[in-house]
Amino acid sequence: MPQGLLVVISGPSGCGKGTVCGLLRQRHPEVVYSISATTRRPRPGEQEGVNYFFLTREEFQEQVTAGGFLEWAQVYGNLYGTPRAWVEQKLAAGHDVLLEIDTQGALQVKASYPAGILIFLSPPDLAELKRRINQRGTESPEEKEQRLQSARQEMAQIRNYDFLVVNDKVEKAVQKIEAILLAERCRVSRFDEQELKLIWGDKA
Amino acid sequence: MPQGLLVVISGPSGCGKGTVCGLLRQRHPEVVYSISATTRRPRPGEQEGVNYFFLTREEFQEQVTAGGFLEWAQVYGNLYGTPRAWVEQKLAAGHDVLLEIDTQGALQVKASYPAGILIFLSPPDLAELKRRINQRGTESPEEKEQRLQSARQEMAQIRNYDFLVVNDKVEKAVQKIEAILLAERCRVSRFDEQELKLIWGDKA
Repeated sequence: MPQGLLVVISGPSGCGKGTVCGLLRQRHPEVVYSISATTRRPRPGEQEGVNYFFLTREEFQEQVTAGGFLEWAQVYGNLYGTPRAWVEQKLAAGHDVLLEIDTQGALQVKASYPAGILIFLSPPDLAELKRRINQRGTESPEEKEQRLQSARQEMAQIRNYDFLVVNDKVEKAVQKIEAILLAERCRVSRFDEQELKLIWGDKA
Repeated sequence: MPQGLLVVISGPSGCGKGTVCGLLRQRHPEVVYSISATTRRPRPGEQEGVNYFFLTREEFQEQVTAGGFLEWAQVYGNLYGTPRAWVEQKLAAGHDVLLEIDTQGALQVKASYPAGILIFLSPPDLAELKRRINQRGTESPEEKEQRLQSARQEMAQIRNYDFLVVNDKVEKAVQKIEAILLAERCRVSRFDEQELKLIWGDKA
């Protein structure tokens, strides 16, 4: 049974990550979506092990010390992280696992799990990103300016990624991600000796 | 204009290379198929620059010394090679170039053009390869045994390739190669600074 692929999709807000991952999710129910651990309290309706793994701050920090997260971060005072054991168990069972996280998290994943595939989803250009950010009616001009600033910083991280998928059309972006998954499953370095021997049948 | 991809498809005789490349060729007229140089004399109907580039032995050897071939070999006393300048010109113009060559040639290409993508096309297993080789009615038992021997040697080279495509069904094998092309076009290391700047629009 070949190991599954760990696929990280990230990109600045306004790149269309939510829409693209939603469509992927719909078309590929066989792909496992990672569940984060958090110290934030459950909201009504949220279920342990479905929406999040809910941890106390002490439990979370013990896990950090033990190297139990592929990546973690503090957001508005709460801690969030991707549980390493849970992800590695899914991968070992042959499932592909998808992580939808920000660029800081993505780079942490690459450091803690080098076989992970980092995909940067980008808007077609800065003008389009500005347009998408401005479309959100609910934010103040300052919030919009800050979003644009951090988008610029995130874009500067592209070189640390494996793949760049420009999201001009959602359908095309999803096709590219599907192609990346199919191609990476053919990568020679992902086959173990056992699998190769099945092909050539004896000591070649 | 992004540089084209140099794609090398090779694998032992009986792996179905001809059929797979034929279907690729039919579906992707935009992909350029490499034309070899040879010292062999033209056969009736063969055209210079269409089937082969015909060279004298002296011209060929001068090219070898000048590093003019991505790979070359002697087969039954004649010299065959892939002209570097011709291929690089097509790549620079943005065309993907496909080379269908044996494993020895493939490894030479990787050495002389590291950005080349090496795809190993393999039969599903050794039993199937034996069956396919035996199906060819025209060969003597000794020739068949020799083909099987060199197939074993070629299979042992898989680890030096980038991708392994198991050819159990031609349609699926072609889809995998198409996915590899699409994915590799998204590889961050294939974008130059100019192309990235077009996206983020200014000094990020």
